Amino acid sequence: MENNAKPYVIGLDLGGTNSVFGIVDQRGEIKGSTAIKTQAYPDVNDYVKAGVEAMQPIIDVIGGIDKVKGMGIGAPNGCYYTGTIENAANLQWKGSIPLAKLFEDALGIPVALTNDANAAAVGEMTYGVARGMKDFIMITLGTGVGSGIVINGQVVYGSDGFAGELGHVTMDRKPGSRLCGCGKHGCLETFCSATGVARTAREILETTDRPSLLRDIDPKDITSLDVSIAAEKGDEIAKEIYEFTGEMLGAACADFAAFSSPEAFVFFGGLTKAGDLLMKPLQKSYDENVLPAFRGHAKLLISGLSGAEAAVLGASALGWEL
Amino acid sequence: MENNAKPYVIGLDLGGTNSVFGIVDQRGEIKGSTAIKTQAYPDVNDYVKAGVEAMQPIIDVIGGIDKVKGMGIGAPNGCYYTGTIENAANLQWKGSIPLAKLFEDALGIPVALTNDANAAAVGEMTYGVARGMKDFIMITLGTGVGSGIVINGQVVYGSDGFAGELGHVTMDRKPGSRLCGCGKHGCLETFCSATGVARTAREILETTDRPSLLRDIDPKDITSLDVSIAAEKGDEIAKEIYEFTGEMLGAACADFAAFSSPEAFVFFGGLTKAGDLLMKPLQKSYDENVLPAFRGHAKLLISGLSGAEAAVLGASALGWEL
Repeated sequence: MENNAKPYVIGLDLGGTNSVFGIVDQRGEIKGSTAIKTQAYPDVNDYVKAGVEAMQPIIDVIGGIDKVKGMGIGAPNGCYYTGTIENAANLQWKGSIPLAKLFEDALGIPVALTNDANAAAVGEMTYGVARGMKDFIMITLGTGVGSGIVINGQVVYGSDGFAGELGHVTMDRKPGSRLCGCGKHGCLETFCSATGVARTAREILETTDRPSLLRDIDPKDITSLDVSIAAEKGDEIAKEIYEFTGEMLGAACADFAAFSSPEAFVFFGGLTKAGDLLMKPLQKSYDENVLPAFRGHAKLLISGLSGAEAAVLGASALGWEL
Repeated sequence: MENNAKPYVIGLDLGGTNSVFGIVDQRGEIKGSTAIKTQAYPDVNDYVKAGVEAMQPIIDVIGGIDKVKGMGIGAPNGCYYTGTIENAANLQWKGSIPLAKLFEDALGIPVALTNDANAAAVGEMTYGVARGMKDFIMITLGTGVGSGIVINGQVVYGSDGFAGELGHVTMDRKPGSRLCGCGKHGCLETFCSATGVARTAREILETTDRPSLLRDIDPKDITSLDVSIAAEKGDEIAKEIYEFTGEMLGAACADFAAFSSPEAFVFFGGLTKAGDLLMKPLQKSYDENVLPAFRGHAKLLISGLSGAEAAVLGASALGWEL
């Protein structure tokens, strides 16, 4: 035990609705996990108190907090340099929230915090398909599009801690292109997120009379999952929607390759469940759009971490670096 | 002299036409320089021999090669990892040219090689406006558009040594957009290089009957310098051309900020001589297009190194890192 007195880390995946805590060992095995409702705590101090209380039983099981090397938090608008959450649109805590410091004080261990996509990149590098890679780009395809960029084995945090917002590069510069939650128009996120897929579905259904299984659903209720189920049943319009999504994502990744010439892109999140429906047009579009000198260099991979655990594993992996 | 027995570095700015060698001290002062014609040597071995011969007098002046710490080369398609030039379109040497090794053998000192834009970035960080910065993006606006990206104080070379090709991100995805030398369509380079400015001039002159000083020039002979001279004389069309160029460049830089959230963008090369004609619409477009959370973070700067010396200084700066 001398050499390995602190064999565990804590990961916190802080989402707008739920907060999942996990205790993880060095092989990436989750030894225990627990969750609280993020929205139930309008005061962040109450949130931290509730989180520590919820964790206590699983901390006891592994032999107490002395066995824990550190804690990592993946949170929206998380700044690695300051350990704060800054004006996150999906959280009720406004302004600058020093969440890393609050957990440090409550637990007595070092705590690191970054945004969820950066945490996912560290998780992929520590436990997933990017093990051994020094240059890769993680793209998270959920409600939004996030990214974590690794160069020379290090996450890129940039001059202010907020680098890696690839969901907000502009893919459509035409006037009147899709409005993004960030206030800009035509962002990658408006096309290649789960909500982007649903938007594409509504647009295509509106502009054609062709039959589709998706017409059985009220347009405003269509989800990316509905589209993928319809596509698997052979629905032509549903397949077109994923083709368009893959084309946009491939074109975007081709531009990202011009930046850091990564060894791989790793895709994570709900949309990747569509599998080849997404990955085939993505690969084709990437090959067509990438600088010819880069063609064939980067692999396009789906995350090796299972969805439910990946976010907690990613956050926990930050704890090893403390 | 004990602590500083090798107080000089050699820089080589290898262009398609000319090759300029300079010996530089630690303050960035060029102690001597010489040049040979790149095109005069179909065999690269003859080129290296001629270069070493041309340098001999200036090496003698500073006390011999023993006073030189290392040599840096900025060359098209230069790969930092291998020290080779790979299939450069503008050079007559085909295939993979081990130029760093050839100069190492001929001079008996360590030699590093990278592309010209990466060399410019190192130069700017060592001697220019980026001194003290750890995160910035260098954009070179010459015949083409090149880039050198610095993150955490290190140039980004990527998984293969060729990262930082920001001139080839796609700015115009419409079918039939401008064909780029790389084989793709709509690349940033087709708009924001010197040749891109001339293309914009021809397109605007063709699609309108409005008077312009540029109509005195045969369209195929119009250069970016002609446009900037006309603009300074108050020519409305010439001003529009630079506005369009600045808008495109600002929109591109806004996307680059989403990648690495740099402290500054540093612009270098012929087009920057247009000054505010370019920089004002560039700044305006950057502010309009950047992710609102990043607004006001990055400075847009013109290189602090004089054009004639900058490329040699940049290349030489690599020599200090050996």
